[in-house]
Amino acid sequence: MTALALLGYLRLNAADAHLSDYVHPFVGAQGEGNTFPGPSAPFGMIQISPDTDATNWNTDSGYEYTDPTILGFSLTHLSGTGCPDLGDFLFIPQVGTPAFVAGTKDHPEAGYQSAFSHTEEAASAGYYKVKLQKSGVTTELTAGERAGILRFTFPASGEASIMTDLTHVINGGRWRIAQSRARIEDGNTVTGFHLVNGWAKERYLYFAARYSRPFDEAQIISNSKPVTYKSYINYRFRSRNEVAGTNLQFLAKYKTKAGEVIQVKVAVSAVSAANALQNLDAEIPDWDFAKLQETTRTKWDRELSRIQIDGSPEQKATFYTSLYHAFLVPNLYTDVNGQYRGLDQNIHQAKKFNRYTVFSLWDTYRAEHPLLALIQEKRDSDMINSILDHYDESVDHLLPMWELQGNEIWCMIGYHAAPVIADGFLKGVKGFDAERAYAAAKATAMNPDYDGIAAYRKLGWVPFDEEDESLSKTLEYAYDDYAIAQMAKALGKTADYDYFMKSAASYKNIYDPSSGWMRAKDSKGNWRLNFNAHLFGGGTNLQDVTEGTSSQYSWYVPQDVPGLIGLVGGKDKFVEKLDSLFDAKQSEVFRNELSENDLRGCIGEYWHGNEPAHHVIYLYCYAGQPWKAAEKLHQVVRTQYGSGPGSLCGNDDCGQMSAWYIFTCMGFYPVCPASDYYVIGAPQLPKAVMNLSNGKKFTMTAVNISEQNIYVQSARLNGKNWNSPFLPYKELKNGGSIAFIMGPQPNKDWGTNATIPE
Amino acid sequence: MTALALLGYLRLNAADAHLSDYVHPFVGAQGEGNTFPGPSAPFGMIQISPDTDATNWNTDSGYEYTDPTILGFSLTHLSGTGCPDLGDFLFIPQVGTPAFVAGTKDHPEAGYQSAFSHTEEAASAGYYKVKLQKSGVTTELTAGERAGILRFTFPASGEASIMTDLTHVINGGRWRIAQSRARIEDGNTVTGFHLVNGWAKERYLYFAARYSRPFDEAQIISNSKPVTYKSYINYRFRSRNEVAGTNLQFLAKYKTKAGEVIQVKVAVSAVSAANALQNLDAEIPDWDFAKLQETTRTKWDRELSRIQIDGSPEQKATFYTSLYHAFLVPNLYTDVNGQYRGLDQNIHQAKKFNRYTVFSLWDTYRAEHPLLALIQEKRDSDMINSILDHYDESVDHLLPMWELQGNEIWCMIGYHAAPVIADGFLKGVKGFDAERAYAAAKATAMNPDYDGIAAYRKLGWVPFDEEDESLSKTLEYAYDDYAIAQMAKALGKTADYDYFMKSAASYKNIYDPSSGWMRAKDSKGNWRLNFNAHLFGGGTNLQDVTEGTSSQYSWYVPQDVPGLIGLVGGKDKFVEKLDSLFDAKQSEVFRNELSENDLRGCIGEYWHGNEPAHHVIYLYCYAGQPWKAAEKLHQVVRTQYGSGPGSLCGNDDCGQMSAWYIFTCMGFYPVCPASDYYVIGAPQLPKAVMNLSNGKKFTMTAVNISEQNIYVQSARLNGKNWNSPFLPYKELKNGGSIAFIMGPQPNKDWGTNATIPE
Repeated sequence: MTALALLGYLRLNAADAHLSDYVHPFVGAQGEGNTFPGPSAPFGMIQISPDTDATNWNTDSGYEYTDPTILGFSLTHLSGTGCPDLGDFLFIPQVGTPAFVAGTKDHPEAGYQSAFSHTEEAASAGYYKVKLQKSGVTTELTAGERAGILRFTFPASGEASIMTDLTHVINGGRWRIAQSRARIEDGNTVTGFHLVNGWAKERYLYFAARYSRPFDEAQIISNSKPVTYKSYINYRFRSRNEVAGTNLQFLAKYKTKAGEVIQVKVAVSAVSAANALQNLDAEIPDWDFAKLQETTRTKWDRELSRIQIDGSPEQKATFYTSLYHAFLVPNLYTDVNGQYRGLDQNIHQAKKFNRYTVFSLWDTYRAEHPLLALIQEKRDSDMINSILDHYDESVDHLLPMWELQGNEIWCMIGYHAAPVIADGFLKGVKGFDAERAYAAAKATAMNPDYDGIAAYRKLGWVPFDEEDESLSKTLEYAYDDYAIAQMAKALGKTADYDYFMKSAASYKNIYDPSSGWMRAKDSKGNWRLNFNAHLFGGGTNLQDVTEGTSSQYSWYVPQDVPGLIGLVGGKDKFVEKLDSLFDAKQSEVFRNELSENDLRGCIGEYWHGNEPAHHVIYLYCYAGQPWKAAEKLHQVVRTQYGSGPGSLCGNDDCGQMSAWYIFTCMGFYPVCPASDYYVIGAPQLPKAVMNLSNGKKFTMTAVNISEQNIYVQSARLNGKNWNSPFLPYKELKNGGSIAFIMGPQPNKDWGTNATIPE
Repeated sequence: MTALALLGYLRLNAADAHLSDYVHPFVGAQGEGNTFPGPSAPFGMIQISPDTDATNWNTDSGYEYTDPTILGFSLTHLSGTGCPDLGDFLFIPQVGTPAFVAGTKDHPEAGYQSAFSHTEEAASAGYYKVKLQKSGVTTELTAGERAGILRFTFPASGEASIMTDLTHVINGGRWRIAQSRARIEDGNTVTGFHLVNGWAKERYLYFAARYSRPFDEAQIISNSKPVTYKSYINYRFRSRNEVAGTNLQFLAKYKTKAGEVIQVKVAVSAVSAANALQNLDAEIPDWDFAKLQETTRTKWDRELSRIQIDGSPEQKATFYTSLYHAFLVPNLYTDVNGQYRGLDQNIHQAKKFNRYTVFSLWDTYRAEHPLLALIQEKRDSDMINSILDHYDESVDHLLPMWELQGNEIWCMIGYHAAPVIADGFLKGVKGFDAERAYAAAKATAMNPDYDGIAAYRKLGWVPFDEEDESLSKTLEYAYDDYAIAQMAKALGKTADYDYFMKSAASYKNIYDPSSGWMRAKDSKGNWRLNFNAHLFGGGTNLQDVTEGTSSQYSWYVPQDVPGLIGLVGGKDKFVEKLDSLFDAKQSEVFRNELSENDLRGCIGEYWHGNEPAHHVIYLYCYAGQPWKAAEKLHQVVRTQYGSGPGSLCGNDDCGQMSAWYIFTCMGFYPVCPASDYYVIGAPQLPKAVMNLSNGKKFTMTAVNISEQNIYVQSARLNGKNWNSPFLPYKELKNGGSIAFIMGPQPNKDWGTNATIPE
């Protein structure tokens, strides 16, 4: 036992008073991680966070750590997406003549944005603080489920103000406000609304704000001018208290004493201003910032304790920040009264469960939802019920592809709500109607109007002459069909099982033996000409592959890795091919303009920064060489994750990047969700205890683990000697343990039996 | 007894089988009447009607009788307003290649509009029919409360279609669609929505439509192109069934046989598409056009029977069409499930009453609501509850000024919801909380933020240096205060009564003895310079008077005509001054650009086409010369009303022009709503029986009446000889009769005692 492991062990036994202390909200806030540093409750509706940018397409959470200025603090944020949206309703404290335009990073004096310093900034789970240099105002933020508090500490000023910009959304320079309205409800309350044509094409969001001090003066600003009596629209207009338009701000004006604190309680709702007010008053009846902060911190402590680990402070920081990111999204969507705005834009009343929103399913079906299925059963159940209700609301009769606040974004490919449902069902997630869920998954998979499915069902592949991204779609459909088949089997639907298992083998139809890669095929069965497995899209000016190359996508047969190994020509050739993926020499071949956004976390052609890579390292285990997985996993954990702002190598994608890390650290990964096993890679921590939703504990220990001792020497599963690189779900579901002995050299006798357990 | 009267008497006794047969929906559809000819149930939510114009500012109902073409048939219409709005969702049958733009009246072939002929057009209460010459399609329309049917009879065509234009609103060339959405719910159902920045600044309306025949093909059109797979927004967009945007149409395509009928059932809702569908299915469960038509016709027969008259066919046509117009507006606003969208844009649940919308109060407080108070008590009660809820939803703490579908339009002046409430209360309208209503009226009247009220309360007049239209506002506030005082008195609020009666005398503060006219005053008490009583606005480039001249507005002291007579210098001078108003020689003085819209129905400076005139003729009765009223009333009835399309001399203004006619024909008029009397002018019909809401009948007979016998010779009220030109409400409220003897010469002994009865 090394000193490091011993230290960690002691720590675990002493129990960390606050696991949330390990959360570093800035992780991923620099570069492509696209996380946000501001406070949010676990899976909360509201995420109050500073925005440093609204118009840069790649600052999708609104915050880029290297930016020199802060625009203000908005109420909602996406975590780790590759497209910008949300950032609704920017609150900006100002001193002196208020500005109503943003200014620029180079010239913040031209607007309301302000320089700031990271030395005057702090963030923890449920809390954020910064001093804005222009005004000298210190801003602190905390958030509950649907409501939060902004606490501003002002200098003495005869002209202090808090401005709310209703035009602000994180728009990437593209989105527009179709309509907005501001309404001064009384002397210290304002509500507002905007309808945004954004990534979500028709997105309604309402807010309510109560101020701890009555306004000295309150103004609605339209086109940078205060709306005064009859100044708006035409001479007949007679309200200063309620204004509709597309360029509105609200300004609360105060004279302040030095150090005066003014708090703003805020809440949001996708339904109505009335609901936002109800959310606000139900959740924060008082003005106790510290209490709300503590309540949310306690929630995080409780949620994070679902996995208790041993490790160095850096490991704990990285792990618990990953768990924090995995527990930010999907987001609560029902108001306190149970109402929500459906995909059909009708207002619905949720019964018996919370509706969730923000389903980045192409990402999260891989490891995020499999993680939730194990340790967040109730929430995963609610999420499955949410996507089933989405299906009922879908006029296209489709489960969600990428859902955002009552909108189908139509982003990415596949029908990966199906494996979320199937994996949840097969992992024992209760609380949803399995027959209804199965019917929705099957109907989606059979929908002839969607993305080449009709041809896929007829031909066995998606033909490139009819459909873009046909290579990737064929592979992902085949996997999704496998997931549906597994659920069909469990429900006793034998014919369906046979049908979907047959189509799960469709990947074989696009394997090109001559090149040794997956290759797009047209509707007549001809191979794509000008194919290049190492070029983004599948060849020059081709769009056969989604966000990558055939050399990356060709590994996407999680449902039948042995079959893929057979196609490639056996385990040795398979390993050789896998090795070549990590060969750095290839890396220049596929660089081009299109790939820039997805070319992250590169190890050769392996891009850990994007999801198609996430299962690939684990494929070594199917080929009898798990030590190669151990090497690569260690390399990725060491180089692509960490506790600093720039640590995430790619978009966190609503928790998927983080969920990969969490599983990997524990020593296993859901390569094939909806299957009955996980793949054992190599643990990255001395100990992890997973508190399953059924109340059982599953404990992983890795004796002798260190920076050098990265290879599994031997393992015991639930007390039995375990020489397989696969972990059956049945060995985990009732709790138990897996104990690894680690060492500095591969034990080439361990885990080489690559037979997937029954 | 003349033959005419005898004939009428017999008719009345035989009872008209269908009073609705007398309704000529084209009345007012030519020129400034601004009515619409299409079907509507009494006070219904939906008004399906042909639109001949969407962009002409003066075609506010969408239909101008002299226009050569029809654009299509939209679902909602304003009746008689002076500003355009509504006209939501235009349905257009086409044959051949469908057009998605309107074309022009001169070149209808460039778009979807079509020539038509009035000889191939017909309309009755609840029914409309026209043949479109371009397509040969006959369109028939009928409507229930919230839903209606469009019946299209097609020629044989391989390319027939029904297009729904979601961009269409009657926009006067100004309004814009902020957002819209079309959704193909299934093979014969579509829903849609738009958010309009119109006269109402933020107006949401949803529709649902079910087609009697499943679509051969259904397309959503965006920017004149069908939305096909991935054609919309970007390559990722994957729905043909649901599209959001700002330039959308829906196209239902069919191959039709000769004479094939395709029906479209439609409904609207201000709440949601789900509610529109619910409204549709609840109200029209079948496809029986004739049944719905008959149901609505029966409703009209029942509503119109609230006043049964004797008269010539022309008189009956004019009278019952007036009653029809008076019973079109305000409009039902609650959906079948009780939901409605409030002024605060929140969705509310109505309890115990129906919410109404479209309150053109500056017009309708004069005679429309006093009429409803007598013969539509339940609806007037619901309307009062509606405006009280509006008050509760108003962040400005104001009763409605001009309410349109959850919007305050801020059109016109005054706080005339107060007299609507007070008159209703004092006329025995039950079902609303009088204390709550009084409090809302008082708070509105005392609101210091509204239209110079603060200065008015301080000075006793609205000063022109602080507020436009100050002359008119002073006069109307004084009257409104009288109405509030009357309600205060009835509720035992003596101090309030004294206060408001004192301010009801404020008109005296702006009477200028030197000119003999009402004249604007500044905040220091100085008279307006460059004043000209005969110029629009009160003088060159002045805006002291609302839509008229001081010579017109100076008569606006309904609450104290004797006081006004005193100011003017006695009855003779008063009559002399009144006579001068009708002197045609004056008519050129006040013509200018600004006055054009309001210069309608002129008899000298008397403009019957606008509301400030409506009580003026009756003022002769206060001065002891009722025979002069009789002459003018007869002249107006004969020249400004009728049964032809161009008969209405000015905007019907949601029934006010028509309500004037109805009262006037019955021989009395509510010169001063909220008072306890009506003014007797001269009856215009041989007999009228008013069925009061309390079940009692009040019968007017006018023996010997004819085109020559226009003067009252004598009268008996409830069997007593009656020599007063005033009709106390107490003599009417329990039913009874007034019997006039008419003659060809004035009886200058009748009605000269101008003492208003106690």
